[in-house]
Amino acid sequence: MPASPTLTRTDALCKRYQTVRDFTSKIASPLTAEDCMIQSMPDASPIRWHMAHTTWFFETFILSENPDYVDFDPQFRYLFNSYYNSVGDQYPRSQRGAISRPGYQQTLDYRRHVDEHMRDLLKSESLSLNALQAVEIGLNHEQQHQELMLTDIKHAFSLNPLFPAYDPNSSPTTTTPQDGGWVDFPEAIHEVGKSGEGFGFDNESPRHRVLTGPYALANQNVDCGTYLQFILDGGYQKPDHWLSLGWNLAQQHNWTAPLYWINQNGQWMIYTMSGLVPLCEDWPVCHVSYFEADAFARWAGYRLPTEFEWEAACPDKPSGQFADCLLGNGQAIHPHATVSDPEPLSGMLGGVWEWTSSSYSAYPGYTPPDGAFGEYNGKFMCNQYVLRGGSVATSQSHIRKTYRNFFPPDARWQFSGIRLAK
Amino acid sequence: MPASPTLTRTDALCKRYQTVRDFTSKIASPLTAEDCMIQSMPDASPIRWHMAHTTWFFETFILSENPDYVDFDPQFRYLFNSYYNSVGDQYPRSQRGAISRPGYQQTLDYRRHVDEHMRDLLKSESLSLNALQAVEIGLNHEQQHQELMLTDIKHAFSLNPLFPAYDPNSSPTTTTPQDGGWVDFPEAIHEVGKSGEGFGFDNESPRHRVLTGPYALANQNVDCGTYLQFILDGGYQKPDHWLSLGWNLAQQHNWTAPLYWINQNGQWMIYTMSGLVPLCEDWPVCHVSYFEADAFARWAGYRLPTEFEWEAACPDKPSGQFADCLLGNGQAIHPHATVSDPEPLSGMLGGVWEWTSSSYSAYPGYTPPDGAFGEYNGKFMCNQYVLRGGSVATSQSHIRKTYRNFFPPDARWQFSGIRLAK
Amino acid sequence: MPASPTLTRTDALCKRYQTVRDFTSKIASPLTAEDCMIQSMPDASPIRWHMAHTTWFFETFILSENPDYVDFDPQFRYLFNSYYNSVGDQYPRSQRGAISRPGYQQTLDYRRHVDEHMRDLLKSESLSLNALQAVEIGLNHEQQHQELMLTDIKHAFSLNPLFPAYDPNSSPTTTTPQDGGWVDFPEAIHEVGKSGEGFGFDNESPRHRVLTGPYALANQNVDCGTYLQFILDGGYQKPDHWLSLGWNLAQQHNWTAPLYWINQNGQWMIYTMSGLVPLCEDWPVCHVSYFEADAFARWAGYRLPTEFEWEAACPDKPSGQFADCLLGNGQAIHPHATVSDPEPLSGMLGGVWEWTSSSYSAYPGYTPPDGAFGEYNGKFMCNQYVLRGGSVATSQSHIRKTYRNFFPPDARWQFSGIRLAK
Amino acid sequence: MPASPTLTRTDALCKRYQTVRDFTSKIASPLTAEDCMIQSMPDASPIRWHMAHTTWFFETFILSENPDYVDFDPQFRYLFNSYYNSVGDQYPRSQRGAISRPGYQQTLDYRRHVDEHMRDLLKSESLSLNALQAVEIGLNHEQQHQELMLTDIKHAFSLNPLFPAYDPNSSPTTTTPQDGGWVDFPEAIHEVGKSGEGFGFDNESPRHRVLTGPYALANQNVDCGTYLQFILDGGYQKPDHWLSLGWNLAQQHNWTAPLYWINQNGQWMIYTMSGLVPLCEDWPVCHVSYFEADAFARWAGYRLPTEFEWEAACPDKPSGQFADCLLGNGQAIHPHATVSDPEPLSGMLGGVWEWTSSSYSAYPGYTPPDGAFGEYNGKFMCNQYVLRGGSVATSQSHIRKTYRNFFPPDARWQFSGIRLAK
Repeated sequence: MPASPTLTRTDALCKRYQTVRDFTSKIASPLTAEDCMIQSMPDASPIRWHMAHTTWFFETFILSENPDYVDFDPQFRYLFNSYYNSVGDQYPRSQRGAISRPGYQQTLDYRRHVDEHMRDLLKSESLSLNALQAVEIGLNHEQQHQELMLTDIKHAFSLNPLFPAYDPNSSPTTTTPQDGGWVDFPEAIHEVGKSGEGFGFDNESPRHRVLTGPYALANQNVDCGTYLQFILDGGYQKPDHWLSLGWNLAQQHNWTAPLYWINQNGQWMIYTMSGLVPLCEDWPVCHVSYFEADAFARWAGYRLPTEFEWEAACPDKPSGQFADCLLGNGQAIHPHATVSDPEPLSGMLGGVWEWTSSSYSAYPGYTPPDGAFGEYNGKFMCNQYVLRGGSVATSQSHIRKTYRNFFPPDARWQFSGIRLAK
Repeated sequence: MPASPTLTRTDALCKRYQTVRDFTSKIASPLTAEDCMIQSMPDASPIRWHMAHTTWFFETFILSENPDYVDFDPQFRYLFNSYYNSVGDQYPRSQRGAISRPGYQQTLDYRRHVDEHMRDLLKSESLSLNALQAVEIGLNHEQQHQELMLTDIKHAFSLNPLFPAYDPNSSPTTTTPQDGGWVDFPEAIHEVGKSGEGFGFDNESPRHRVLTGPYALANQNVDCGTYLQFILDGGYQKPDHWLSLGWNLAQQHNWTAPLYWINQNGQWMIYTMSGLVPLCEDWPVCHVSYFEADAFARWAGYRLPTEFEWEAACPDKPSGQFADCLLGNGQAIHPHATVSDPEPLSGMLGGVWEWTSSSYSAYPGYTPPDGAFGEYNGKFMCNQYVLRGGSVATSQSHIRKTYRNFFPPDARWQFSGIRLAK
Repeated sequence: MPASPTLTRTDALCKRYQTVRDFTSKIASPLTAEDCMIQSMPDASPIRWHMAHTTWFFETFILSENPDYVDFDPQFRYLFNSYYNSVGDQYPRSQRGAISRPGYQQTLDYRRHVDEHMRDLLKSESLSLNALQAVEIGLNHEQQHQELMLTDIKHAFSLNPLFPAYDPNSSPTTTTPQDGGWVDFPEAIHEVGKSGEGFGFDNESPRHRVLTGPYALANQNVDCGTYLQFILDGGYQKPDHWLSLGWNLAQQHNWTAPLYWINQNGQWMIYTMSGLVPLCEDWPVCHVSYFEADAFARWAGYRLPTEFEWEAACPDKPSGQFADCLLGNGQAIHPHATVSDPEPLSGMLGGVWEWTSSSYSAYPGYTPPDGAFGEYNGKFMCNQYVLRGGSVATSQSHIRKTYRNFFPPDARWQFSGIRLAK
Repeated sequence: MPASPTLTRTDALCKRYQTVRDFTSKIASPLTAEDCMIQSMPDASPIRWHMAHTTWFFETFILSENPDYVDFDPQFRYLFNSYYNSVGDQYPRSQRGAISRPGYQQTLDYRRHVDEHMRDLLKSESLSLNALQAVEIGLNHEQQHQELMLTDIKHAFSLNPLFPAYDPNSSPTTTTPQDGGWVDFPEAIHEVGKSGEGFGFDNESPRHRVLTGPYALANQNVDCGTYLQFILDGGYQKPDHWLSLGWNLAQQHNWTAPLYWINQNGQWMIYTMSGLVPLCEDWPVCHVSYFEADAFARWAGYRLPTEFEWEAACPDKPSGQFADCLLGNGQAIHPHATVSDPEPLSGMLGGVWEWTSSSYSAYPGYTPPDGAFGEYNGKFMCNQYVLRGGSVATSQSHIRKTYRNFFPPDARWQFSGIRLAK
């Protein structure tokens, strides 16, 4: 699956392994054992499950290659397998919240057990290229789950009428953005997809040539104030700008605003990682589905970009709105407005994931890797849409401009926002 | 709602209050904070919810009558209301498992807060008759939830492939029963329903006269060995003896045995409060639905008793197989075989709940009490069947022969078994 | 299954056979081939299916006993089996509306084919007692389906925004009833269930003794005007008087009035077999579910009678509001108000089915007949409620006071109304 | 919506109008009034509904522009509106099978009424350009419904255990194909989408440039024999080659072969428009979902083409396997094998629709037309996949190589087959 595994060895790898694993603990640290139990919907998982599953990944795909390795608990092979048919049956996804044991402490023990064996392995000379690649995948896999931990606990807490704050000591930042206008691009053939050094998932390859027509991208994300105009204009009451599937869904679930927006006696509040706070119109809108992003764009007279228009335009310099930059630095896990920068489009990386109009599909010549890693990405290439750029819940060390995230068009619990194209 | 509240005063009531409240804690004591989070199905609730809701009951219906009383947390009024429309909206039942806060410790604080105020109140001279009645209801209500705590945690644990034991230090008792044969009753008019002293729920009243024809009751509950004959005879493969609704349900859910029976390579195991153990054929069968009880009875050539045949036959002396007799005495919460007694039918009280063929309905002249207690029983009198006698999960101090339990005909997670009639 | 088959022979039986079979054709005669196709919900069946299934009944249970008999079409054995597992698999009930062939004309051919063979058989000397009983059941079975033909086509037409009239030449009668007051009954032991001569279904037996307390029955059915008061008093907006299951269902389906009541700009209209007409307050309310009947009764301060209170009170003389009295005589299939009669309670038979508070269950000593007829009634004795008395869609020659009809508590498409008890 | 309306006038247009309208009648002619009632699933519609809705289209979008026009029946505006929110509410789609009136004859009257008014209009000098465009759309719209009439009645009949033949006088042709091998294409920029003369739907525009890499297309469709190898190799038993959504669906619905394949005691039969016949291995496989087409392609080591690879390769000369060539000429509406032609890929047009790997989305610069026609295509651009080329149920006069058909990935009731790419 890795297009180009990074062959950093021994010390660097050990350090990176530790850093990634520690960040998982850091994310869990403000939570109680009970918080780590909740599965608020089938698409979400308990925090403790994420902690165990990411550990299972290293145990199953790396440690177990050694016939002398003894499992921490053989039942975990089944219990913490997410969806890998190649390595056996799976505990039903929708019932992950019904598992109280192993508890939080025993899950930490499990992590320690695997970490110790992994450290020994990483220090050894005998690490194969395959194993190295698997470690890279395992670390990137864990970083993906770190983001899900944040979005899943936010969703879980939002169902509690007490609206607990994940991080009560932080508060979302407010900045007045300048109107960034549009950045134009001429018709051109681009190379897209992962190239050269560094890790990339299989779905970013093969690198290939695409033709994009002349287009323009908005310099800023759509902000809450502008989105509010859409709401006030009857955006959720009239089918005019909606995809048919989206309109039916919005009616069925009584959507009247993005997820986590709550109208309290005429005042818009928003549930954030810092708790329930008044909405700030300058913030980028997030927690919108593809359906909402698309309907908003049509209402505004524009459209969403394709993933290749997005990738061709993305600058290398990111915004800094990432989980590993914010968490523990007194900053809220919440996208804030950016003052437009000397370098245009600098907000494309970080802040909010940006829905593209591209259905998630295979690049020309793509073949899933052999074995279980072949189930990682390829089998999900249907009825999902590509998001690009990472968010405040993504680690900066995990993202890059060729990175393809993907969710079904009705998903709203990720930090997903809107950048317009024309 | 109480037909005849017990007017024990001051000391006795205080003592009884403490005893009941303490038994809730005792039931929770072998569990971790995480165990107390699980909601394994919409019909079940988290242990912690039971602990809070029973406390909410005293706070809402007794303490709040005093205008000076200050709520522990005003949000709890909504969060821990089960289904009392009269006292406000309710947090959605099916999402109780999504609430991690208040956590276990804060729930204990809530219990202590209410207990202190209750003790003050119970000691005062000014306790009204209404309040006394409400306390009685509250205690009996809590005892009902104590039983649900046991059955709900059993169900929750059963979904865990590790099969945790609620009480790993106990093990189910085995005794060889004598075949008790049948006890005959002639045609007669009986008075049924609650009379005289002691507490009774509204649904046990008014006491009234019923005519029962000549009938006989089996001296023993149906045991697992006999039920196994039903299974081996294709009981779950042929529609012959089943109610139509039951057969469709059994097919849909692939029922092949009572709940918690697991066939491991041809060996029948049974999941108990003591963990997974080999099935003992002498044990009373339990965790069967009304549908299974009824189909078994037809297959055997008999039938289930009506609730009045049952009540008219029930002796006063109970078996001793009750939660408050077993728990903490090294005995498993599991029905064991009884050696037939000098007094026939002595097993009717305790052991397993016994399905009757009686649909749960109002006694002649029944009127629900005014106010919220009117929602306690009356509004559920539809599409449920009456069970009698209590089980190993019921407290002996809670049961009596006029007591009417009720569950939908597909319910299996209670300790529900079979006594045949003819 | 028949408790006491009528042993009328040869000529009388032939005549009766022909009369019943002809009435089926009479019911179908105002309909187009396309009308006879509709299955408007899984609980209803196409008219043509009823015509074929009732024919299948005679073919399967009588003609096929003769090994020389050749099926009209062997596939019909499967296609027109409703729910008799004993005689083979069944075409899925919910897809009966997907069958266009055999068409209407071929269905008539099928009926003729079977009628000819039946006539030959009925004239022969050799007819066994078993066959005679089966013929009786077959005729009563067909009469049950005649009622369903009327209620199913009414439901089907009601979904058509053109509101077609089944019988456009009729119009519902209006009469001003006198208030009949109440009729009192003392405590007594009654014999209930089928006795003596004439046909009765198995579920009416064994005849047995029951004790009823002192009670009173209303002399008239609840009328639309009184029911309207319940609606105006917020009956459908407040949970106060509803069973919990009923309230949830009413909310889910947005019930605001009985089935077929339509509020057009503040004017209540009612869809009848004669088309859409203004509501007449004197008519008996019908097309209410058990839930509505029960909630109305509580709101009014009364209750529904038990089926034995009903049976013990029912006079022998019927009202004349029956399908075989109305249809073809220029009278609408619609219950009208009755002027209270010299003989009290004379409206109990005919007009509307009357919901009782009795769950549908077996009489003491009941055993289902052997073979397929054992599937006729017994297996449905769960989560249904007994209705008594017949309706304008029932034939007078089909009804009697021991007759037990049964439907789930949410069913509304039968002509089901309310008689209060206290 | 039409990219380039055909401005044929008066006589030619009248003739074309009549030809298209007559073909609808021709398709319905072998059917009974009852056949025309069936709605076998929510996605399908009754034949009579198709006949009325296509007429409604002309009445609503053309005739009603004239304020003097009097509706045939004003209720039809609601009853036969499919999904156009702009012109009012719609009768619920899933209940179209519950409408028996207007019946078949009255539907023909409706068609005649509208045809007469349309003929008068088409002959007049005053026909506006807008009206001309609407007529073109109306005719193409009717041709789309003609195909649905054939596929919907096939689906409806397939649920009947009698397996009625739509055209019992035809039988599917068998021809031995030559293995056509592959046709190669180099990397190139193509213009795709509708250009120049003739009608095209809005979703085929704007014409634009795309880059395709080097690729090859199979000269023949995948045949049943090859698909059978996939089945025999456990294609439906192992998740290996399936998209995750497809695998779950296939398990849930117990798919074991394409729709309409029936294994009778080890012999593969196939339900066709000519009835149930033995499977011929040379026939192109059809009635497969996108999920099956994709899984088969992966199993075979190839892939599905993109819609642009398909369009760039498609020759102008079609195969002749079209509804308007087959129906009434004694030929079955069933794809047969083609002997490979001097001109490669000549089978791309006609025979079976070919699934492409392209998600159905807007072309760059696409804007839905104003008004109701804007609801025709654009709002469905989500979670559907593009099929190209037409089938035996499409009219040749309706198809072209830029034509984009689209269905959700689980749809199987269209004549959808597979052409491999590499």
